[in-house]
Amino acid sequence: MLKTRIGIVGYGNVGKAVEKTIVNFPSLELKHIFSRREIPNDRYVPIKEILSYKDDIDVLILCGGSKTDLPTDALNFSEHFSFVDSYDNHNNMKEYLNNLAESALKHKTTTITGAGWDPGLFSIIRTISEAVLPSGHTDTFWGRGVSQGHSQAIRAIKGVADAVQYTVPIDSVLNKVRDGEDTKLASFQKHTRECYVVLEQDGDKEYVKNAIVTMPDYFADYYTIVHFISMEELDANHRKMPHCGFVIRAGETSEDNKQIIDFSLKLSSNPEFTATVMLAYSIACDRLKKDRKIGAFTILDIPPSFLIPENAMIDIRDYI
Amino acid sequence: MLKTRIGIVGYGNVGKAVEKTIVNFPSLELKHIFSRREIPNDRYVPIKEILSYKDDIDVLILCGGSKTDLPTDALNFSEHFSFVDSYDNHNNMKEYLNNLAESALKHKTTTITGAGWDPGLFSIIRTISEAVLPSGHTDTFWGRGVSQGHSQAIRAIKGVADAVQYTVPIDSVLNKVRDGEDTKLASFQKHTRECYVVLEQDGDKEYVKNAIVTMPDYFADYYTIVHFISMEELDANHRKMPHCGFVIRAGETSEDNKQIIDFSLKLSSNPEFTATVMLAYSIACDRLKKDRKIGAFTILDIPPSFLIPENAMIDIRDYI
Repeated sequence: MLKTRIGIVGYGNVGKAVEKTIVNFPSLELKHIFSRREIPNDRYVPIKEILSYKDDIDVLILCGGSKTDLPTDALNFSEHFSFVDSYDNHNNMKEYLNNLAESALKHKTTTITGAGWDPGLFSIIRTISEAVLPSGHTDTFWGRGVSQGHSQAIRAIKGVADAVQYTVPIDSVLNKVRDGEDTKLASFQKHTRECYVVLEQDGDKEYVKNAIVTMPDYFADYYTIVHFISMEELDANHRKMPHCGFVIRAGETSEDNKQIIDFSLKLSSNPEFTATVMLAYSIACDRLKKDRKIGAFTILDIPPSFLIPENAMIDIRDYI
Repeated sequence: MLKTRIGIVGYGNVGKAVEKTIVNFPSLELKHIFSRREIPNDRYVPIKEILSYKDDIDVLILCGGSKTDLPTDALNFSEHFSFVDSYDNHNNMKEYLNNLAESALKHKTTTITGAGWDPGLFSIIRTISEAVLPSGHTDTFWGRGVSQGHSQAIRAIKGVADAVQYTVPIDSVLNKVRDGEDTKLASFQKHTRECYVVLEQDGDKEYVKNAIVTMPDYFADYYTIVHFISMEELDANHRKMPHCGFVIRAGETSEDNKQIIDFSLKLSSNPEFTATVMLAYSIACDRLKKDRKIGAFTILDIPPSFLIPENAMIDIRDYI
């Protein structure tokens, strides 16, 4: 069996998780890890040498951040490589994809964007469930789980040494929605925020707490709880990155009949799950390449059957 | 906006549900209902005249039974029409699809098979969740809901006037599985069966009860409860066809990290949900036709983006 040769770009939480979880995918083989910083790893290649490895890689997995890394890196890579990413900035998605499409078509490469859980599996569920239940409403809940963006926002406050923020769905609201009720509530009415904060030696508790709970967009509208803990406690209890999420669509197919589609994820490790979603879609990316399908795809463009390695697939019909 | 012109074949529970629920799909238009028996309906056309309506229909929706109707009907229709069906016989699926593929390719038509919930949405979830969590186990539960096959099996017993059978998941097992436990239990250890039976005037309670609980495959292995009720009670409380179902995959991405994907449906009307799944996939069928993609497809071959009507879709990227 000819394996699909994978290159990892970026060696943060997600890059490390791709390296760790690829053993679960017998049709994939990790060839190189491209990183800006030198890393003590047999597969390390300085990112500036990546073009010399063009013929040695079938699909790159881009593990950089959506804010600063991907918008420029992805465009550059699409000139030379086919790749999968988990770009997650909903607001800039269109521009990102349009740029990629232009480049990928010009350079005859194949890219798949949004291979994570939201955007990602949640997008697939939203699309299919809205398609089969056109008259209805969809709700998304996140948590209980760590939000990197919110944790980062707390860490940026003066006097904070480290922090982890959990987004927590309000159970009573979640249960109503799972029973099909259209609560019409905004995100801040559906979630609370729980913060575990380690102060610097001279950090001011009252100042930090106030800076968190009044922070616009991130916390101001939410019911927010702030716990001050020691670094030892943070290390012992809050270094794993669990996450959960729910997509629920309730629709009426006729006057009398309510139908509910309920999808949820309960993840012990958010980065490892994002990694395995990208690995599954790298199988699809390689199949598209072999079918000479070039351009920028989202995971909504990929048939589920493309996630099964072609050579391992005696008959996709076994999966029905 | 040019609507996709739909023809219904078969006017049982599902055919009627397609007629009733198509109003939710603004890109679809019901043209004719083809039936063997005469029906009091403006759109009724005797099935034997169907070929005269070839140019008047874009996609047929086949609503006959998988046991006797579809295996022969579908092959005949595929010579002249593109269609969607919800064929649900897992064991004969391959043969059915191979026959269809041969005919559809020869006659340049497009067919989509298995557009229901199992096979159907459950197949999609099983495929995607096994792809992203290759090391793990998948469990499917059905119910609480009416099983047509089991109800029919009871009705065939001497002395039974009518019957409805509910398949019921065992809560304690379901909860363990939703928490990620691999129970390795068989279907009969995960479900009980509840039967509501109306006897004929001279029906023998003991004989009927014994015939049910000892029936091989259907009931013998299961914990089965039999209630004898009046026809009035059956009509009042058991004529709706609710159903529920769960597909749960628990996988380990690394030694420490368990990840759970949990998908469920809670349906007030099983036939209406099957109908709307087929209607959504008729949008995909028409798009495939227009792209000149001929042959026999399953819903695993269809990208989620194909469920959105092309002319209603300003930009699929809005759905991510």
